[in-house]
Amino acid sequence: DSSLKVFTLNSNPNLAEEIAANIGVELGKSSVTKFSDGEIQINIEESIRGCDVYVVQSTCEPGNQHIMELLIMIDALKRASAKSINIVMPYYGYARQDRKARAREPITAKLVADLLQTAGATRVITLDLHAPQIQGFFDIPVDQLVGVPILSSYWSKKGLDDIVVVSPDHGGVTRARQLADRLKAPIAIIDKRRPRPNVAEVMNIVGNIEGRTAILIDDIIDTAGTITLGANALIENGATEVYACCTHPVLSGPAIERIEHSNIKELVVTNSIPLQEEKHLDKITQLSVAPLISEAIIRVHERQSVSILFD
Amino acid sequence: DSSLKVFTLNSNPNLAEEIAANIGVELGKSSVTKFSDGEIQINIEESIRGCDVYVVQSTCEPGNQHIMELLIMIDALKRASAKSINIVMPYYGYARQDRKARAREPITAKLVADLLQTAGATRVITLDLHAPQIQGFFDIPVDQLVGVPILSSYWSKKGLDDIVVVSPDHGGVTRARQLADRLKAPIAIIDKRRPRPNVAEVMNIVGNIEGRTAILIDDIIDTAGTITLGANALIENGATEVYACCTHPVLSGPAIERIEHSNIKELVVTNSIPLQEEKHLDKITQLSVAPLISEAIIRVHERQSVSILFD
Ligand SMILES: Nc1ncnc2c1ncn2[C@@H]1O[C@H](COP(=O)(O)O)[C@@H](O)[C@H]1O
Ligand SMILES: Nc1ncnc2c1ncn2[C@@H]1O[C@H](COP(=O)(O)O)[C@@H](O)[C@H]1O
Repeated sequence: DSSLKVFTLNSNPNLAEEIAANIGVELGKSSVTKFSDGEIQINIEESIRGCDVYVVQSTCEPGNQHIMELLIMIDALKRASAKSINIVMPYYGYARQDRKARAREPITAKLVADLLQTAGATRVITLDLHAPQIQGFFDIPVDQLVGVPILSSYWSKKGLDDIVVVSPDHGGVTRARQLADRLKAPIAIIDKRRPRPNVAEVMNIVGNIEGRTAILIDDIIDTAGTITLGANALIENGATEVYACCTHPVLSGPAIERIEHSNIKELVVTNSIPLQEEKHLDKITQLSVAPLISEAIIRVHERQSVSILFD
Repeated sequence: DSSLKVFTLNSNPNLAEEIAANIGVELGKSSVTKFSDGEIQINIEESIRGCDVYVVQSTCEPGNQHIMELLIMIDALKRASAKSINIVMPYYGYARQDRKARAREPITAKLVADLLQTAGATRVITLDLHAPQIQGFFDIPVDQLVGVPILSSYWSKKGLDDIVVVSPDHGGVTRARQLADRLKAPIAIIDKRRPRPNVAEVMNIVGNIEGRTAILIDDIIDTAGTITLGANALIENGATEVYACCTHPVLSGPAIERIEHSNIKELVVTNSIPLQEEKHLDKITQLSVAPLISEAIIRVHERQSVSILFD
């Protein structure tokens, strides 16, 4: 059987270390640096001829840099005769640019899929795509892992009482339902609506939250506007406490300040995107997806079904 | 006949303006901004359905950003039904990564060619590729313009006497020969050689430079090590004055300081890469490639031969 190698690039080096340790291999030797003019220089420092290679890279900020690193690494691996080039992309950047919402928009999520395949990727392992349709943008196998079980075990262990799981918008109801089922809790939905044009949005709560502990869940928290305004609305409407969780902590711009000054008691996220120093708030708990991803890699490598990991 | 549109991205907005003005069109309306998390947001703000579109973008520093901008723009143009998508790339980044010099290196110049085609480019107009072989990395037409005529008219007008044109290495002799022919001057070559391993390089001058005004020519000046050391060697070997020129002023890292403190009296470059504020040295003269590129665009659009521009 061909041997398994795990390489890291610059987005998630700690996660990659953890994954390699779980699998019981050393991280592949490579250097990813820059020439004087900022062009990326990649050297793979061990033979990978005939190997099944797994490259760990989220395309989080700086996303364009991380995408180019990944494409150049794939090119180098392909030319060095890798048997398979498996992209482990816990966070898939540009996933929100997944359709033409207006005339003459790009569909960058599809473009990125095409670029990865052109470079030579043979499989993608990812986690909680913003839209499941993105799987269809690829002509190679895509294994989409699910973050809800990791979040739900955390909440179970925490032992909160009288929980209601809340989706911050209509798009997230399925995800809220999955978490609620695992926690044997009811759900509620924040229903945003603009009564007339140029009038402030009103937040209605659909479902019963009064006297309950609310857990908001989303896939991505970016500027944290939706989630912190949602938390306010929940408290105003009678929730006793508000917690929040998401898979992908993008946390750009005003996010950290908003969360700090919000009604959210604790925000639970995964390490699909590492938290930078300035994002290390006391309020934020980060859970590792390394066990899930390691298991997926082993199963893929041993040609076992990965779908067992979805429940 | 289908109409011609010129769009700019963020690398060379002034050059694009100049090109559009030369051709007699307005620059196409578009905005290229960033979302809060740094992802690129492109909006094309006028219909381009059925048009021949020319997108001006050098992939100079920040090169990865500029490549992604370009790919996303091409994707948007393709989905907006452009008739043809012509990439005007005065400086082709990653051109020095054009072969496997060592085991397991990427060939990023080929990767970039593949990415542009995957996104939907139908033609590339470029200038002085670092290696002409890069044309063969594409399966779409590539028109490679030549910078020597622009540089040579500048030197002719300047009216220096007793010129010798010098190539800083063996790779650049053809280019030096082209400039020398136009200036009716002889050539010389700087022959770098390491007598034994771990011994400093020696610079021999092949050709007669004594009592002459030397003009060094290269395609790219990056950190300016080669060109400034070359200038020293020329003066030491009896040249009276040293001038230098190149097509692509990458000028990264120590370049500006090195040029400032060097024997080079004047450095002449083109605007294939714009000079940033801190690169605006009194010693540097920048010539515009806009007339050349505008002429090429008009000829391509009118289905006339472009090769006439090569002499
Ligand atoms: N990086 C980004 N940051 C914020 N908004 C984005 C980003 N990428 C795409 N969008 C926009 O987000 C919307 C899609 O989000 P959604 O409705 O949640 O799927 C589209 O209108 C996109 O233009
Ligand atoms: N951006 C860059 N800056 C400096 N050197 C580079 C860059 N890209 C590639 N190279 C190296 O430059 C060499 C090729 O340059 P050349 O021999 O002039 O064609 C190769 O060894 C490359 O590894």
